[in-house]
Amino acid sequence: MSRFDQLTEQQKTEVERQLQIVSRGAADIIPVAALKEKMADSVAEGRPLRVKLGLDPSAPDIHIGHTVVLHKMRQFQDLGHEVQLIIGDFTGRIGDPTGKSETRKQLSEEDVARNAQTYREQLYKILDPEKTKFYFNSAWLGEMKFEEVLQLAGKLTVARMLERDDFAKRYAGNQPIHIHEFFYPLMQGYDSVSLQSDIELGGTDQTFNILMGRTLQGAYEMKDGQVAILMPLLEGLDGVQKMSKSLGNYIGIDEAPNEMFGKSMSIPDELMLKYYELTTPMSGEELQDLKQGLENGTVHPRDAKMKLAKTYIGMYHGEQAAIDAEHYFITVFQKRALPDEIEVIELNESELEDQMISVTKLLVTLGLQSSGSEAKRSVTQGAVKINEQKMDDANERITVQDGDIVQVGKRKFAKISLR
Amino acid sequence: MSRFDQLTEQQKTEVERQLQIVSRGAADIIPVAALKEKMADSVAEGRPLRVKLGLDPSAPDIHIGHTVVLHKMRQFQDLGHEVQLIIGDFTGRIGDPTGKSETRKQLSEEDVARNAQTYREQLYKILDPEKTKFYFNSAWLGEMKFEEVLQLAGKLTVARMLERDDFAKRYAGNQPIHIHEFFYPLMQGYDSVSLQSDIELGGTDQTFNILMGRTLQGAYEMKDGQVAILMPLLEGLDGVQKMSKSLGNYIGIDEAPNEMFGKSMSIPDELMLKYYELTTPMSGEELQDLKQGLENGTVHPRDAKMKLAKTYIGMYHGEQAAIDAEHYFITVFQKRALPDEIEVIELNESELEDQMISVTKLLVTLGLQSSGSEAKRSVTQGAVKINEQKMDDANERITVQDGDIVQVGKRKFAKISLR
Repeated sequence: MSRFDQLTEQQKTEVERQLQIVSRGAADIIPVAALKEKMADSVAEGRPLRVKLGLDPSAPDIHIGHTVVLHKMRQFQDLGHEVQLIIGDFTGRIGDPTGKSETRKQLSEEDVARNAQTYREQLYKILDPEKTKFYFNSAWLGEMKFEEVLQLAGKLTVARMLERDDFAKRYAGNQPIHIHEFFYPLMQGYDSVSLQSDIELGGTDQTFNILMGRTLQGAYEMKDGQVAILMPLLEGLDGVQKMSKSLGNYIGIDEAPNEMFGKSMSIPDELMLKYYELTTPMSGEELQDLKQGLENGTVHPRDAKMKLAKTYIGMYHGEQAAIDAEHYFITVFQKRALPDEIEVIELNESELEDQMISVTKLLVTLGLQSSGSEAKRSVTQGAVKINEQKMDDANERITVQDGDIVQVGKRKFAKISLR
Repeated sequence: MSRFDQLTEQQKTEVERQLQIVSRGAADIIPVAALKEKMADSVAEGRPLRVKLGLDPSAPDIHIGHTVVLHKMRQFQDLGHEVQLIIGDFTGRIGDPTGKSETRKQLSEEDVARNAQTYREQLYKILDPEKTKFYFNSAWLGEMKFEEVLQLAGKLTVARMLERDDFAKRYAGNQPIHIHEFFYPLMQGYDSVSLQSDIELGGTDQTFNILMGRTLQGAYEMKDGQVAILMPLLEGLDGVQKMSKSLGNYIGIDEAPNEMFGKSMSIPDELMLKYYELTTPMSGEELQDLKQGLENGTVHPRDAKMKLAKTYIGMYHGEQAAIDAEHYFITVFQKRALPDEIEVIELNESELEDQMISVTKLLVTLGLQSSGSEAKRSVTQGAVKINEQKMDDANERITVQDGDIVQVGKRKFAKISLR
């Protein structure tokens, strides 16, 4: 009989409630049955679960993409559980022994301490400090001697390690994999052994490493291995690639409010709900309401996006900053930036299909561009904006509404009047 | 210009002399040019070379097969160089972390100390204690921390390691290779870094591991990497497989003199010169003389083999023990074991081909067996001896001489008279 089955009805209800909350938005939970059992133990014994997250010691500059796992952790905290944040300072202090990697620079103790402080300041904007424990993994890894390292390495086979995506590709492609690289997943896994984590969170790109923790806990004879909760990777402002600083498609949580507002307004419409779900504390019910509102037209996408922008600024800079940034955006961009008198051009609804039209066709129909190819070129050059949002795909089909302002370059404007 | 080219003529002659001695009997020297340069430095600077040999901490029971490398080391010592013997106690103390290997049992500190003492007693029968240094590799490996282990592991790629024969076979055959196994060659190689060895000796089966030392010395920025001197593997008394205790085809150097004598007499004729060359201190000139004597018939193989037996006993038990064992062998085996009156059977030399004849044909020709198939069966059953040496291949072509005694079973004898 499972541990869940032994609970009272009230306890079962509580477990189901918690499971629903922590499962929302997750890409995968491995194994999902084990999570239920862990929750059952936690509820039965009144023991908080230990929810682990590993942090890269070299990159404390957090953007919205990073907050996906943090919001999930906050949900755990709100349910009474405990967060283990592990700064991989041991890895960071080693750098890359081959000296060949640009990305893994060796960090000094001062670097690590400063980065840890930055992390604290940033993460406590989302996490509850009362239920958050910080660890440096040098505390246990730095003390390990060769003999213990060999014990650790003996837990896994070469073939299993070479199953990891990037290793498999490099091995097949005759690109060098240095033997020490096998230790990065082993170390991350050993952190879970050392801290007896119940759950580890990460993006789907961390699947292998997180399951390694579960495997190693088993090899070190822990009763129950940790459960992996894998969150989706958030696409950046380009709507295509994973949000990352190096691609420039990110919103940093330390960015100035006005900058944050402007960037938030450029989130692609179709990703807005995903951003809401994964990067704000919005509850499941509120999210459902918003989704319905957008679908039935009672909520305008622009308004929803402005609310999202305000939510971000509220979280990271406070409520007043959010109000100020909205005001600034409206006056500077939506109002002042546009000519006082904009020609109103009527757009026959017969031109639309399900209220939608491609950017190219819109520009030509409004008479702002003389041909489709001219329209496409303008989009490519970044000269086309609709309601102050830059268009970057001439073929994109967009929804237009009465009063929308279409702009090409600095001087050509049109205000749409639907009839 | 090479360092050799900068020597005086006298120094060059000395280098060439040393090279000739240390090259004798070696299966391979990698790279041979580097050995010449090392020798040149040694002669120019009057600096002894450091010649390394790694010893398995779990198997101090040395047999003649092991002495091949030891005799080579003794040659180095006689030329003024220095021997580094490394007992792999660190590896031995770890055992097999997976607990799956029967062969790699964990040794206690007492085991290691006792085995080291046994090694000393046995090895000093061949090596010069004055020019021998003993090391335990736990002295440096036991102190290494995780960080240094990663530095070490970063020196090599996974693909390079998987080139090692046994790894390659197991990987291809989907048999598990545990990651810690990669460290055995790395540790052996690191021993050479730690001791700045100039040369490492080993059997040809150690090629990969010894070249690893050379690679790692380069990676740790030593000016000249060590040279590998690879000795042939000595076939055991069966004449086919590598001499090993588990196969029972060995002569242990601690075996009792009479046992040692008897076993030596069973060395296959065709391997006798190899045994002389690789496992005795016989000089190149003496070896040449013996070879000629055997070829032109002035030395009887049986006599040469008895001398070999006496050489072994002399080395490992002293001159008097050698004389006693020979006397015992002659009285007990060569005389008393044979019937007083043995029928003399004439063998026409026309039956021989270059003085040789197959065992089968000999038995039939002498009338000891009625047919070739009967003769073959007797050989297979181990019932056929010539001069007290058991024959194990009925098709083998052997040299016969006047007075040779051929025996089938316990009762059939014939003494050959050539005409």
